Amino acid sequence: MTGRTKYVLDETELPARWYNLVADLPAPPPPPLHPATRQPVGPEDLAPLFPAGLIEQEVSGERYVDIPEEVLEVYRLWRPTPLYRAHRLERALGTPAHIYYKYEGVSPVGSHKPNTAVPQAYYNAREGVRKLTTETGAGQWGSALAFACATFGLECEVWQVRASYDQKPYRKIMMETFGATVHPSPSEETAAGRAVLAADPASPGSLGIAISEAVEKAAADPDTRYALGSVLNHVLLHQTVIGEEALKQCALAGETPDVLIGCTGGGSNFGGLAFPFLREKLAGRMSPEIRAVEPAACPTLTRGRYAYDFGDTAGLTPLLKMHTLGHDFVPDPIHAGGLRYHGMAPLISHVHELGLMDAVAIGQRECFAAGVAFARSEGIIPAPEPTHAVAECIREALRCKETGEEKVILTALCGHAHLDLPAYAAYLSGAMEDHELPEAALTEALAGVPRP
Amino acid sequence: MTGRTKYVLDETELPARWYNLVADLPAPPPPPLHPATRQPVGPEDLAPLFPAGLIEQEVSGERYVDIPEEVLEVYRLWRPTPLYRAHRLERALGTPAHIYYKYEGVSPVGSHKPNTAVPQAYYNAREGVRKLTTETGAGQWGSALAFACATFGLECEVWQVRASYDQKPYRKIMMETFGATVHPSPSEETAAGRAVLAADPASPGSLGIAISEAVEKAAADPDTRYALGSVLNHVLLHQTVIGEEALKQCALAGETPDVLIGCTGGGSNFGGLAFPFLREKLAGRMSPEIRAVEPAACPTLTRGRYAYDFGDTAGLTPLLKMHTLGHDFVPDPIHAGGLRYHGMAPLISHVHELGLMDAVAIGQRECFAAGVAFARSEGIIPAPEPTHAVAECIREALRCKETGEEKVILTALCGHAHLDLPAYAAYLSGAMEDHELPEAALTEALAGVPRP
Repeated sequence: MTGRTKYVLDETELPARWYNLVADLPAPPPPPLHPATRQPVGPEDLAPLFPAGLIEQEVSGERYVDIPEEVLEVYRLWRPTPLYRAHRLERALGTPAHIYYKYEGVSPVGSHKPNTAVPQAYYNAREGVRKLTTETGAGQWGSALAFACATFGLECEVWQVRASYDQKPYRKIMMETFGATVHPSPSEETAAGRAVLAADPASPGSLGIAISEAVEKAAADPDTRYALGSVLNHVLLHQTVIGEEALKQCALAGETPDVLIGCTGGGSNFGGLAFPFLREKLAGRMSPEIRAVEPAACPTLTRGRYAYDFGDTAGLTPLLKMHTLGHDFVPDPIHAGGLRYHGMAPLISHVHELGLMDAVAIGQRECFAAGVAFARSEGIIPAPEPTHAVAECIREALRCKETGEEKVILTALCGHAHLDLPAYAAYLSGAMEDHELPEAALTEALAGVPRP
Repeated sequence: MTGRTKYVLDETELPARWYNLVADLPAPPPPPLHPATRQPVGPEDLAPLFPAGLIEQEVSGERYVDIPEEVLEVYRLWRPTPLYRAHRLERALGTPAHIYYKYEGVSPVGSHKPNTAVPQAYYNAREGVRKLTTETGAGQWGSALAFACATFGLECEVWQVRASYDQKPYRKIMMETFGATVHPSPSEETAAGRAVLAADPASPGSLGIAISEAVEKAAADPDTRYALGSVLNHVLLHQTVIGEEALKQCALAGETPDVLIGCTGGGSNFGGLAFPFLREKLAGRMSPEIRAVEPAACPTLTRGRYAYDFGDTAGLTPLLKMHTLGHDFVPDPIHAGGLRYHGMAPLISHVHELGLMDAVAIGQRECFAAGVAFARSEGIIPAPEPTHAVAECIREALRCKETGEEKVILTALCGHAHLDLPAYAAYLSGAMEDHELPEAALTEALAGVPRP
């Protein structure tokens, strides 16, 4: 033993405020544009879908936003989350590096998603909304919102991509246990769904179609709103509790990270850990490298274009300035469902453009090998998404082994794999493929995206 | 908010010793007997199956056993576990009672089982054992042992009851991710398995058959030993870390439990929480009622006979003095697989006989209704086994609502349901049955058990 295994905080040390990175950036991020007018969208454009409390956060330039007591009360069910020193993994790798991971899998649904689902449900309930709709792929986000709605007495209606609905029934059961209604998408419940089914009764669905269904249903009922689990500013704002706690825990451990590593799909887990550390970096109090890891099958930051594009496949959302592979790009069916998004949070895209972070892409076999090594040393089986972060941690730790550097590496372990275990079975059977995005497919996908 | 939501301990407060209740009981428990001689079995009878370090604990009368540093290092991956005050459930019930739950689902495999799997793997590894074999039903124990073997570099071979192997593939994948080999039982790997398959090629298996296979394989190889996940004294000893931590956490909360409630299958989770509190009760420092909850389909303590019986179906084990429904009793297929055991830990049976605890049996529909209520208020979806404890907590809390008593209720929430979600689907669909054991079936099952 060289020091402690985990750093736990008492619930009295739960952050009282969310941190808004926008306040500290050298330049503001480009605003979302209305697709028809190409003018910045205003709060009134968003009102049919989101409550005023969240719209205010979406456009806020204030550095801090107080977390309501009603939200803190629910956060306390699992927060603060532990920060671990990966002693046993370090030993297995023979590295002089110090590896720390902030573990969000202790939440009721096993991921970081409730950090934003809970305040989203709260602000909607406070404004008299009766029901929330949303889409979900593998189901992490849908189950988080179902849990959050249960805690604030809201109804919850989820459109789950048909392929996942059929292949991953456990997530649907979890959502139903929390009281949500779950439809496979495309469904007969909406005009959008019926149109797709008319054209292809056996459609496996897509996130784009599911978004269209959830948005259509929310817009049609004045008591219903829509909720999104990543990408938007207010979502990343809520996730900063991760990084704020990690800062306190690093101080407890007496360490300052040299490298921060997180996986990116829409970007909320990565931003949640990284933004408070970026504040410290911008203020000159520390200087960690900050690195996003994305799947080689969906390399948004490393190979996408930084341009205005739609957030969804059907083109219903405002135009967002972001790294994108094209809004009709459909990534190969890798197991990290949460990372299969064509775009990147505008705020993270902007941070990348400002040169404040870098990114790497890794194939899924290396990621699952890392996940298995992590499980056998640390006990926790990482969800497919954070295996990407673990794989890059291992790369960094092995570089340190070569150079002899005692770097401090901090990573976000954003969830466990209990409901994704078939992905590990695929890896262990040897049947898994890497799915690196071919150059020709990338060129085709980007053809419809305007150059900046 | 009335007080804190959870009480966390720093890892420096992890118990340094396991507690052996035998040292404090007014009379020693009756010893296991050799079935041929009906004389007490000695350590030498157990040596082919267990390492000396565990046999020593099995027969020990010492009050405390130091926990080896190698075991503590692994415990620190998830221990100390949190103690929660169920504020939101109390509010939903409208009860003046204070409900606390000690949550063991934060372990790598989601239950209390690693508390004993880790020391069992350690003592075997220390004595040069190369491989452990075991049986598992739904897979909680098998996955705990697979994890523990991974941490100490042991091979692990698990025989999983065929019906569960086919119906609950996620647990098998978890075991394989930790590096274990998993066979469906009956298997072609052993003479016992081949004999069953010869008679019935489509046999769904049973825990009794799986034990026979695991024991046969261990006994045939001098480098292999067998591991059991409940029932025996050393298993209950290891689980006392639960109660020792809970005692400290109750002190932090400034509360003394009036009622302790835990579910019982083999008894290790219940004993783990209750024994340290029983020590305090025997010493006159507190006086909680201590109550076991068992399934109405397998009512060992409430309707079984206290007599010498075999621990397994095939009659390979020593005779144990315990509450039993008969060693060839096969409980109905309720979802709480961990509670479907015909007997009860001899130490718990003895404590019950001494009048130091009571027991109730509850049908599974009431248990799952309690599980859903718990999930929707507290966020955690309880495994099917602890829904029994939750159901009795709710009964007690509602009695307090009638009487106005502010009782302090403490329960053991020994695991989550992530890998058992199909049980909740069955409940929510309305298809679940209670399976109360009919009187005629009980009479038949007890016919072969000698009267005491």
